[in-house]
Amino acid sequence: MTKLSTALIQMRVTDNKVENLRSACDWIERCASDGAVLVMLPEMFCCPYDSAAFPRYAEPEGGQVWQMLSDAARSAQVYLVGGSMPETDSSGRIYNTCYIFDSHGGQIGKHRKMHLFDIDVSGGQRFRESDTLTPGSQVTVVDTDFGRLGVAICYDLRFPELARLMALRGAKVMAYPGAFNMTTGPAHWEILFRTRALDNQVYMLGCAPARDETSGYVSYGHSLVASPWGSLVMQLDAGEGRLLAEIDLTEVERVRRELPMLQHRRTDLYELAEL
Amino acid sequence: MTKLSTALIQMRVTDNKVENLRSACDWIERCASDGAVLVMLPEMFCCPYDSAAFPRYAEPEGGQVWQMLSDAARSAQVYLVGGSMPETDSSGRIYNTCYIFDSHGGQIGKHRKMHLFDIDVSGGQRFRESDTLTPGSQVTVVDTDFGRLGVAICYDLRFPELARLMALRGAKVMAYPGAFNMTTGPAHWEILFRTRALDNQVYMLGCAPARDETSGYVSYGHSLVASPWGSLVMQLDAGEGRLLAEIDLTEVERVRRELPMLQHRRTDLYELAEL
Repeated sequence: MTKLSTALIQMRVTDNKVENLRSACDWIERCASDGAVLVMLPEMFCCPYDSAAFPRYAEPEGGQVWQMLSDAARSAQVYLVGGSMPETDSSGRIYNTCYIFDSHGGQIGKHRKMHLFDIDVSGGQRFRESDTLTPGSQVTVVDTDFGRLGVAICYDLRFPELARLMALRGAKVMAYPGAFNMTTGPAHWEILFRTRALDNQVYMLGCAPARDETSGYVSYGHSLVASPWGSLVMQLDAGEGRLLAEIDLTEVERVRRELPMLQHRRTDLYELAEL
Repeated sequence: MTKLSTALIQMRVTDNKVENLRSACDWIERCASDGAVLVMLPEMFCCPYDSAAFPRYAEPEGGQVWQMLSDAARSAQVYLVGGSMPETDSSGRIYNTCYIFDSHGGQIGKHRKMHLFDIDVSGGQRFRESDTLTPGSQVTVVDTDFGRLGVAICYDLRFPELARLMALRGAKVMAYPGAFNMTTGPAHWEILFRTRALDNQVYMLGCAPARDETSGYVSYGHSLVASPWGSLVMQLDAGEGRLLAEIDLTEVERVRRELPMLQHRRTDLYELAEL
């Protein structure tokens, strides 16, 4: 499989979990009808992006949300990058977690957001995920029929080390559910995706919730796909909708052949290693 | 010193070394008159960007070009990031080297391009620096009155590891003489500078030769300054000229305080180390 039909669901997120879940499942079904093979949901697609909400909406792996995502992937026969949701573990810790399912509904991986978003911009955005969340500790790369897929979440995007580690582990496509805001979105969202794509010569997928000006945390939207050459393949605006893009995985090989940067890394002088 | 007047000289480069040198020195003098404290020349400012030319124009450290740069820095009383030139060592190897001078004309550092530019884009740019050049093997960070300055050259920009290593060594400003071309320039020049600035929360300075459509390798120009927030402070077009920008070094501290990404790196999970 060299051409991959991807669908990024920029859905509206409300404070009604069941409503969000129903909406997500409807969108997944519709994207499958449109021919999508890889479908992706945004960060915190079933829960308001609000530190106080995370504990109330949290579920263990295998809970209601997880089950509905698994069912949706199986029923639609798509790979599903399940956005993210608050996950509780047995000791009561809460993570910002993305589950990844194959087209049979089987979980093939999960990523717990590794870098927590604590920001305080004067006159701009303030948020402290670490008030209620615990960070993950794993780099997440999974095998699929279309090649290796890296998954990370939102603020993880700001750390070039993580994208590089996924590329070194063989990822050709990286999916980041995210929810940049009206301060960081216009300033950083697009150049971060494009430059990570360019540096690592991979496709980058960024999927955000639709903008809702009435919400406590206003998502920038602008879900996008960036190519291994660092260009925009497609980008949405702020409203609810889905991005459908066919990506050509042979582009990864072509760009890497023409500009062999990954081979030009001076691994005799520096080393990036997982500990 | 918290405000720093910088000048980037986007000069026209011919195949006449003496003419190029005279032009560079004139520009340096003029920029000093304009109040610049840090002046920067472009990559290969005194030599055509052509593998075959590098050996012919090469000089040892302390040679004619070096001496004129040192004199110009002393006479103009500016810090000078001396673009780059072909440097020969005692064994006849040739490097793409940037000399850095203080305002007394003393050399405070030099950077030998660490990643050599070998590219072959179908229908686009082809170049093989490694045909005649040897890569350097040092990360270059120097102390100045205005704080720590990192220096690297052109293709080095494509490696996030190097900029990160300079930031971890304390660089607040990074200067990259460069000469992207008409394939890579429009596609990558600006987002690379802006994203390195953003990721490392530093000022990035990129200084290119003016565009000359008659030359064998056509420089994209577009010398620029990017801020620690990842925005463009200023950017030139393609023609000959100089960019004058006052940068506020307290911005580095402000951005790092509001969005403390360098502290959020998961150094318990990954490590970037010089070998």
